[in-house]
Amino acid sequence: MNIPDLRWWGWGTKDRGYSLADRPALRTALQQWLDLPDEMLQREPPAIPLEEVTLRPSRLDDPMLASLHKSLRNGVVRVDKRNRVEHAFGKSYPDLVRARAGHIPHPPDAVVYPTNQGQIAFLLAWAAERDVTIIPFGGGSSIKGEVEPPPDDQFVITLDLAHLNHVLSVDPISRTARIQAGALGPELEAQLNEQGFTLGHFPQSFEFSTLGGWIATRGVGQAATGYGDIAEMVQAIRGVTPSGIVATESVSIAAVGPNLLQMLIGSKGAYGVITEATMRIRPAPAVQDYRGILFQSLEEGVNACRDLMQSEDLTPTTVHMCDTSATAALVARDRRRDGLRRLTDQMTDWYLGIRGYDPTQDGVLLLLSFEGQSDWTAKQWERALELCRDHQGLPVGRSVGQAWRRDRYSWPYVRDVLLDCGVMVGALEVAITWPDLLPIYEVMADTLRKAIGTHGGDPGYVMVNITHACEHGALLRAIDRKSVV
Amino acid sequence: MNIPDLRWWGWGTKDRGYSLADRPALRTALQQWLDLPDEMLQREPPAIPLEEVTLRPSRLDDPMLASLHKSLRNGVVRVDKRNRVEHAFGKSYPDLVRARAGHIPHPPDAVVYPTNQGQIAFLLAWAAERDVTIIPFGGGSSIKGEVEPPPDDQFVITLDLAHLNHVLSVDPISRTARIQAGALGPELEAQLNEQGFTLGHFPQSFEFSTLGGWIATRGVGQAATGYGDIAEMVQAIRGVTPSGIVATESVSIAAVGPNLLQMLIGSKGAYGVITEATMRIRPAPAVQDYRGILFQSLEEGVNACRDLMQSEDLTPTTVHMCDTSATAALVARDRRRDGLRRLTDQMTDWYLGIRGYDPTQDGVLLLLSFEGQSDWTAKQWERALELCRDHQGLPVGRSVGQAWRRDRYSWPYVRDVLLDCGVMVGALEVAITWPDLLPIYEVMADTLRKAIGTHGGDPGYVMVNITHACEHGALLRAIDRKSVV
Repeated sequence: MNIPDLRWWGWGTKDRGYSLADRPALRTALQQWLDLPDEMLQREPPAIPLEEVTLRPSRLDDPMLASLHKSLRNGVVRVDKRNRVEHAFGKSYPDLVRARAGHIPHPPDAVVYPTNQGQIAFLLAWAAERDVTIIPFGGGSSIKGEVEPPPDDQFVITLDLAHLNHVLSVDPISRTARIQAGALGPELEAQLNEQGFTLGHFPQSFEFSTLGGWIATRGVGQAATGYGDIAEMVQAIRGVTPSGIVATESVSIAAVGPNLLQMLIGSKGAYGVITEATMRIRPAPAVQDYRGILFQSLEEGVNACRDLMQSEDLTPTTVHMCDTSATAALVARDRRRDGLRRLTDQMTDWYLGIRGYDPTQDGVLLLLSFEGQSDWTAKQWERALELCRDHQGLPVGRSVGQAWRRDRYSWPYVRDVLLDCGVMVGALEVAITWPDLLPIYEVMADTLRKAIGTHGGDPGYVMVNITHACEHGALLRAIDRKSVV
Repeated sequence: MNIPDLRWWGWGTKDRGYSLADRPALRTALQQWLDLPDEMLQREPPAIPLEEVTLRPSRLDDPMLASLHKSLRNGVVRVDKRNRVEHAFGKSYPDLVRARAGHIPHPPDAVVYPTNQGQIAFLLAWAAERDVTIIPFGGGSSIKGEVEPPPDDQFVITLDLAHLNHVLSVDPISRTARIQAGALGPELEAQLNEQGFTLGHFPQSFEFSTLGGWIATRGVGQAATGYGDIAEMVQAIRGVTPSGIVATESVSIAAVGPNLLQMLIGSKGAYGVITEATMRIRPAPAVQDYRGILFQSLEEGVNACRDLMQSEDLTPTTVHMCDTSATAALVARDRRRDGLRRLTDQMTDWYLGIRGYDPTQDGVLLLLSFEGQSDWTAKQWERALELCRDHQGLPVGRSVGQAWRRDRYSWPYVRDVLLDCGVMVGALEVAITWPDLLPIYEVMADTLRKAIGTHGGDPGYVMVNITHACEHGALLRAIDRKSVV
């Protein structure tokens, strides 16, 4: 992460605001759902200025720093306040609350930005000798404390991979690319797109997360239904451990032994620092056709999703199913009248109403997409719509799909706006087999709603999505919002 | 493995012979390729009778045996000669040479056939206390020494999973099945077929190998291009270790941590005994359409395979490409005139010849299949043939494909026939990316041919197949035959 004007107390950059002032529909919906008084919605971001943050001085003494500076290039080692603050936390709700309050008791003692693998090998060996903790850092979007220095007496250096951000080579014949671990989503996709390819990993954190982070956390992106999760995309990993280089063979299939690659994926830096990976890539699609389909109940929507994934001739790119609350939130979030908001227009309401759908009340929306060659995509859609109609699905068009796609990285910004208003937002994810999906959904949503009440956060708002589906099951993600004025 | 009349000195059962007498074309071809005199081809299987095998007595003393007999049910513990001989080796070339000579210096001291997981847990704990080596045993088709007792002083008990051979349950909604590890290929498929499903794992050893063995060795079957390799089919594993039960969660996708499941797959019993697995299954296909396509060069054939795998709308079940030698061997192996042999018929020769193909000289045959619903399969074939024609591929029909399918488990039998004649057979496998495929193929085949000459085995015969293909690469398998009269 080496982004100018990054918000260390929140998501995104300073120059890219996200304000409820521009979004009256979202503002009204949030006020209503969370019973927020006007004055709360007018709060300014309450983060204290960087100058007012009091930071423990770096515990690295002069000889240690001199040793680092001598062996690593100029500018690679940073001990300034901004760098140490930016690397003190990830981006979870508790992280941001503490950052905004200037409560940063355990910042790293230094931040190192290596420019090559040799510097990383040196640093790990240097740190091992001195018992210094090294924390690998990609985009810093972590929400489970992975990048936060432990509250103990060991010195901590954060190793930021921002300068290792290049696509090193592309093999168009085997459709693979060697990519450095520090490449942020947009950097990586831009470099691949130039050569006619895409990786196809688009997590919600896409703008501020890196390839290395995706691999280290075993990420699942929004297009994983079609392109696979990150574990399926990795063909080989190269990394540095305190005792040397680890490099797995770059082959796509092999009938040998335990798969060590799958131990490194999801290892969160425990075994070393991932420096590059050979990734399976795909030709950049000619067409990206995203559309919305409305169902009369979650049950029918879920059955349609399962049929889609178990059909022998359909391979959707995205299967994103919203329950009633999530559908209402999507509609409220959309700023343009020609997109999701269209669903609430009077005419549309009337049209949908006489057919038995009411998106403001109990609409259940499926965002479905196919990406590929134009004629293939058209045929896939034809079959998919036929299948959805078997479950009383009503196609509501491309503008709805495009609206979702346009805003697909925006929930973290909305989370921050809610944080400004004193509203807590949390999320959890459940991997599930098809028969358990609806029963678990009911229990999960109900338990969360009750918990918000029990802990005094009423009125809360719970929404659940199916974010990913495959032949044998799906991922359910629940997001709950709770006032904690 | 609990098969009556199993050949402990070779492949298959005693009642199912495989003889060159029935196969004059194969006989002639082998004679010619390997320069075998008539009398060698008339040899009887030279294995010595079981009665004449001298076996070291079991080293388990009476108190140990009594303790086992007491805790395990009657009939579960076996120390008879036949059982100990059957479990002394796998089925590799060196294994069979030793078995046939009656040279079995390290047989297991006992064979245990547990009937439930509790007995396995007991046995592992019992063995750990007494420092006894336990070797899990499925079908015993291993070719890398995995089931052979080590030549040391530790007592050895072979744990044969033959009685754990049931499909325990099928979840038709999520398309998964809980299956016991000791189920042989035909047992498992029959039970799944009854409920309308298939696993889709068909290795060459299918008839005499088990689910547990496929998982423990990370197998790749002949239909892996379509159904995936065994690692992709396993959703969860249940096993017994000396310190307790290991069971992974049965979910199809999850964004968490290192994947321990992928450490158990391919672990060859190192961590414990796999007792059951939840497998991803598929509806049994309505149509299994196998066909042959002839190419003028391996290069064109390989390019066609790659295009097939990289096409966005084709999902072949089998991609099995034979080089010239492998094509000739397939043709010679086929017993029926309406199958592969048709390719050598005069009329066919003439027809192919004027179009530039000669299957007896330089034909390169692709066995391709699609399995699924009738109309889907038809459409897939239409597209596939179009694509193959772009590479000058000539469709040679279903009878060729069916002939290959009919004989697809027969190479191990042919290997044994050759062993009878004093011919050594070996195989090796290379996982490879597309651009490296042809160069490595050339080097591999050439090196093997030269090595046979250097070691006095001329004339040898080397054939290479692409046994599996995917978007990013393929598996090359080379088989070499060498006279060692």
